[in-house]
Amino acid sequence: MTAQVGIVLGSDSDLPLMQDAVKMLDKLGINYEITISSAHRAPDKTAAYARTAEARGLKVIIAAAGLAAHLPGVIAAHTILPVIGVPVKSGALNGVDALYAIVQMPPGIPVASVAINGAKNAAILAAQIIATTDNLVREKLLQLKEDLAREVEARDARLKELGVAEYLAQK
Amino acid sequence: MTAQVGIVLGSDSDLPLMQDAVKMLDKLGINYEITISSAHRAPDKTAAYARTAEARGLKVIIAAAGLAAHLPGVIAAHTILPVIGVPVKSGALNGVDALYAIVQMPPGIPVASVAINGAKNAAILAAQIIATTDNLVREKLLQLKEDLAREVEARDARLKELGVAEYLAQK
Amino acid sequence: MTAQVGIVLGSDSDLPLMQDAVKMLDKLGINYEITISSAHRAPDKTAAYARTAEARGLKVIIAAAGLAAHLPGVIAAHTILPVIGVPVKSGALNGVDALYAIVQMPPGIPVASVAINGAKNAAILAAQIIATTDNLVREKLLQLKEDLAREVEARDARLKELGVAEYLAQK
Amino acid sequence: MTAQVGIVLGSDSDLPLMQDAVKMLDKLGINYEITISSAHRAPDKTAAYARTAEARGLKVIIAAAGLAAHLPGVIAAHTILPVIGVPVKSGALNGVDALYAIVQMPPGIPVASVAINGAKNAAILAAQIIATTDNLVREKLLQLKEDLAREVEARDARLKELGVAEYLAQK
Amino acid sequence: MTAQVGIVLGSDSDLPLMQDAVKMLDKLGINYEITISSAHRAPDKTAAYARTAEARGLKVIIAAAGLAAHLPGVIAAHTILPVIGVPVKSGALNGVDALYAIVQMPPGIPVASVAINGAKNAAILAAQIIATTDNLVREKLLQLKEDLAREVEARDARLKELGVAEYLAQK
Amino acid sequence: MTAQVGIVLGSDSDLPLMQDAVKMLDKLGINYEITISSAHRAPDKTAAYARTAEARGLKVIIAAAGLAAHLPGVIAAHTILPVIGVPVKSGALNGVDALYAIVQMPPGIPVASVAINGAKNAAILAAQIIATTDNLVREKLLQLKEDLAREVEARDARLKELGVAEYLAQK
Amino acid sequence: MTAQVGIVLGSDSDLPLMQDAVKMLDKLGINYEITISSAHRAPDKTAAYARTAEARGLKVIIAAAGLAAHLPGVIAAHTILPVIGVPVKSGALNGVDALYAIVQMPPGIPVASVAINGAKNAAILAAQIIATTDNLVREKLLQLKEDLAREVEARDARLKELGVAEYLAQK
Amino acid sequence: MTAQVGIVLGSDSDLPLMQDAVKMLDKLGINYEITISSAHRAPDKTAAYARTAEARGLKVIIAAAGLAAHLPGVIAAHTILPVIGVPVKSGALNGVDALYAIVQMPPGIPVASVAINGAKNAAILAAQIIATTDNLVREKLLQLKEDLAREVEARDARLKELGVAEYLAQK
Repeated sequence: MTAQVGIVLGSDSDLPLMQDAVKMLDKLGINYEITISSAHRAPDKTAAYARTAEARGLKVIIAAAGLAAHLPGVIAAHTILPVIGVPVKSGALNGVDALYAIVQMPPGIPVASVAINGAKNAAILAAQIIATTDNLVREKLLQLKEDLAREVEARDARLKELGVAEYLAQK
Repeated sequence: MTAQVGIVLGSDSDLPLMQDAVKMLDKLGINYEITISSAHRAPDKTAAYARTAEARGLKVIIAAAGLAAHLPGVIAAHTILPVIGVPVKSGALNGVDALYAIVQMPPGIPVASVAINGAKNAAILAAQIIATTDNLVREKLLQLKEDLAREVEARDARLKELGVAEYLAQK
Repeated sequence: MTAQVGIVLGSDSDLPLMQDAVKMLDKLGINYEITISSAHRAPDKTAAYARTAEARGLKVIIAAAGLAAHLPGVIAAHTILPVIGVPVKSGALNGVDALYAIVQMPPGIPVASVAINGAKNAAILAAQIIATTDNLVREKLLQLKEDLAREVEARDARLKELGVAEYLAQK
Repeated sequence: MTAQVGIVLGSDSDLPLMQDAVKMLDKLGINYEITISSAHRAPDKTAAYARTAEARGLKVIIAAAGLAAHLPGVIAAHTILPVIGVPVKSGALNGVDALYAIVQMPPGIPVASVAINGAKNAAILAAQIIATTDNLVREKLLQLKEDLAREVEARDARLKELGVAEYLAQK
Repeated sequence: MTAQVGIVLGSDSDLPLMQDAVKMLDKLGINYEITISSAHRAPDKTAAYARTAEARGLKVIIAAAGLAAHLPGVIAAHTILPVIGVPVKSGALNGVDALYAIVQMPPGIPVASVAINGAKNAAILAAQIIATTDNLVREKLLQLKEDLAREVEARDARLKELGVAEYLAQK
Repeated sequence: MTAQVGIVLGSDSDLPLMQDAVKMLDKLGINYEITISSAHRAPDKTAAYARTAEARGLKVIIAAAGLAAHLPGVIAAHTILPVIGVPVKSGALNGVDALYAIVQMPPGIPVASVAINGAKNAAILAAQIIATTDNLVREKLLQLKEDLAREVEARDARLKELGVAEYLAQK
Repeated sequence: MTAQVGIVLGSDSDLPLMQDAVKMLDKLGINYEITISSAHRAPDKTAAYARTAEARGLKVIIAAAGLAAHLPGVIAAHTILPVIGVPVKSGALNGVDALYAIVQMPPGIPVASVAINGAKNAAILAAQIIATTDNLVREKLLQLKEDLAREVEARDARLKELGVAEYLAQK
Repeated sequence: MTAQVGIVLGSDSDLPLMQDAVKMLDKLGINYEITISSAHRAPDKTAAYARTAEARGLKVIIAAAGLAAHLPGVIAAHTILPVIGVPVKSGALNGVDALYAIVQMPPGIPVASVAINGAKNAAILAAQIIATTDNLVREKLLQLKEDLAREVEARDARLKELGVAEYLAQK
């Protein structure tokens, strides 16, 4: 089946982080493609990727990059698909540079930034976008939301049953 | 016609800023509703708004707030619609507090952050989400992208014709 | 006996840190209840908790959270009890995001922020609030203050007796 | 009647800001005393003030200071009353220095920090502390909370009635 | 005569700032061309500009941009000419975003960053690069360096002659 | 009489600020010389100044600079006199750059940093150094300290007499 | 053969980092000399080095320093050669101090800053400067650029062949 | 012999760091006393220490503290001796909080700040102050300065002899 989400990594060193996004998309039953490209080292590949994304059937692009993280913005320059940027924690500034380089886009070309290293949320956000017209994904997101609340409830119940010391001991 | 985008403001002091979003949605032909609510001063109104958003037909929510900007995250807690957060520049920290409070959401509940005061881009991003299944909006976004490029071209041509000093003098 | 202090954790990963608060409350002879809830993953539980806090007999609430730490503010939105926020050091920004999201509350809904990871001080502050009308806790706080000063004195005396090198060797 | 809240200003240049606290305390029917002292220029006065605060009947102290804002911490060193610190926006760092100097207190001696320039919230927080055992203040705080929610509701209704352009025009 | 320096502006709002660079290049007798382009709004124009820069005879490119300032990095992706980036002070973050987005380039594709709003120094740096093989420019740079030192000397002499008060009065 | 304090300014734009230091030194009866030099534009003058400072009879050097404020450190490299650095608020970073460039000196070559724009305190600190062996200056510093405390006392008394509103009205 | 690039280190602790620059210059076939000097501990050696650099045949200087990183600016004060500054990550501020102290140079004396710890890019930038008139280096830079793009392509192909899990397993 | 320098530590956890200061004072032949006190936990001890410092014969005080580092400022409030503050790297903010709390003192009460963890430089700065009237210390400081320059020279010579790889191998 055709991929609905395109995941683009600025470097293969971002792959362990982006596995969180991959797993979440799998869980939500969303097809994706995953690509290593680079705004700086492979600008033509990146531009070509972005320009053909819509025609390939993609609905959303997730782009992850660290340092002077231009990748999400450069992709957004070449497509009208929503682009979700994941600032990667790396280097001396711990990802603040990547956050600013992703979120502070000038008027006209938006990028949707999630948290530094927020790979999992990037996947959920992509699913939320798809879910605006896809009932199956919508159901899965509602389920995920319920599960999150139920997990909090379960942990709270367990803490109240065990007490602080025992809860920590069994962890 | 039913609103597709819900704009929520934490305070009516954010209204002049959010007029940029309103104008852009008008230009792109997208129906919206606009609401003043507050995560802290009107938590029940905010929760009710978010819980009923999907049923009212909204596809995307744009929430703007300054300082400890909880509004987008609190709305995201109550809906699976994509929530776009606009950190508002205000107070001593110039919006860095709002940016962090919006973008650094924990795993499970994403918010899509745009730039500090990025109201216009919030509207375009909302439109991009709608355009994934709405051809009319898609056409308008393609047109907007072309216009932006053409405007750059026109200014560049004018600068080359007039020279720096004259360009500035006529501005 | 009825709990006077409610401790709320955004996640059970904050539990080791908040054990410092628990121990200090134990030492000061103050009853507390401890709850895991989440402003984002369990918003209804959180709102219900805050709305019923006063009726349950709580005098003060301590809420700890990291990243976009909305928990203390969201609780404060639903109660007039004093809410003490503990910004948790976590993620790429080391807790500065949590500090800003807790301390920069808008006019009308205050949160009392302590230091990043300041769990122990949150407990002492809660005790100070209770001590304004509870003589037993007041006595214990006066004792704690004396102990702190005496400990400084003892370490200083020891340093003067042993000298720097020997003091460090015996540490 | 005896003052329950002590307001201390590091400098009379902080007085216009702290008028917000004064007005809120007046509105909530809480007696206060107001003092100019300085941790650095008048350390003995400051220590004497703090040491005698409890005996004078104070329940809470609000201390406001800018730059290397030691005043709240120095007062907290000399009393077990809850001390609320208001970081003042001033100088080149816009109050971030004051925020850090107030909120980052070491274990043992807490200060409750509110937002930079958060004078109004300092007063409400002081009232919340007093309200834990004062039913009159409690009623006024509940009223204030309701008023805040009602005001949001009123502005929202007005916005919906007038529309964005007209709302801004009449502002 | 052929331009040796290409100046690229992300927006015509950067033109007043970049006039400092233009004037300095004029003073140093260096030919330049000036172009408005945008990494995001006109990506194809920007790529084309960079790819043909060397063939057009350029020796150095100066690129100025604010916010998520991708322009210098995107140009550097398409050419091996040295690219000097000028972070522009604009928006809520005063140019720190632009500085990080320009200077924190990943290994392989360098950009030479000057100070925020350092347009004048960008021109001098470009001249220094040209001067490594152009004796005329070299002489002018040596002269400029001497002038700077002489100007300091003159002001110092004047201050010593007039005294502080009179110097300021005559300023 | 021989100057005991040397004031060095990186630029004559720092002169209005440094007038605060000049006035304080005048008040404390300390002779000074004032010089405009620049670590970057006049490095030889700066080095010569620092190398001959001790022989000219100086006891302390105060150096003020903004941006990449190398002046105090460069002077400290050439003398064993205590060097007091005044980071000047200027440019996009408001003096944080100057603060870091002055205070973060590597082991071996210290600079004593005062606050951003802390010209007055630089003068007092210089006087404190001189006062370690100059009884006349010592007396004046004790007097200054007393005056500061008395002034706080006077303002406090006035505030208590007039009340907040009237105090502000008469200001 | 004569060195074209001078590498200066503020301390031998920067040598492991600067080996990246050395290796890149070797790869690009550029002769260099490497020197330990210090703006603060060896100011005369540093000044002498910079003053004689051009006469020794150097075309570019790369200077690396941490903390209050004055070295690049101090060298730039004594030469008109282009100076590339490498801010070194060290100490409590992780290199932000070094970045500001290097990049925020005042008008008149530029330094070309690369990323914090950007040693490799400093070498490439130096090569780009030399390549403006050296065809051999130019060819090698074009080759390097191609290699970077090809490496991205190869990794992407491998990821697509192996899938995420297997790619990570074989890494 | 009488101590000339007083070293005060906010906590014995700062002792390993301050050993650098102790060793440097030993090397420079300066007598010192070392004391653990705390601005917050032992305010009376701290005030007494500062008030009697001059009478005990101290010439300079070095005070080290982390977090909301009030210790140097509080000591400076009680004495006219020069106070050198050492911001200690600790906690979530890595010492930036301590730096701001030490360096940003208000007009009237200066503290001389050295770098975060700058214990060694605090000792040298104290010696420089003493050396303004003590020829023996002056000679030792001149010697230290020469040694620093010679050490740079020696390392540079060794690097030139061994080459980069061998120098690193033998390190």
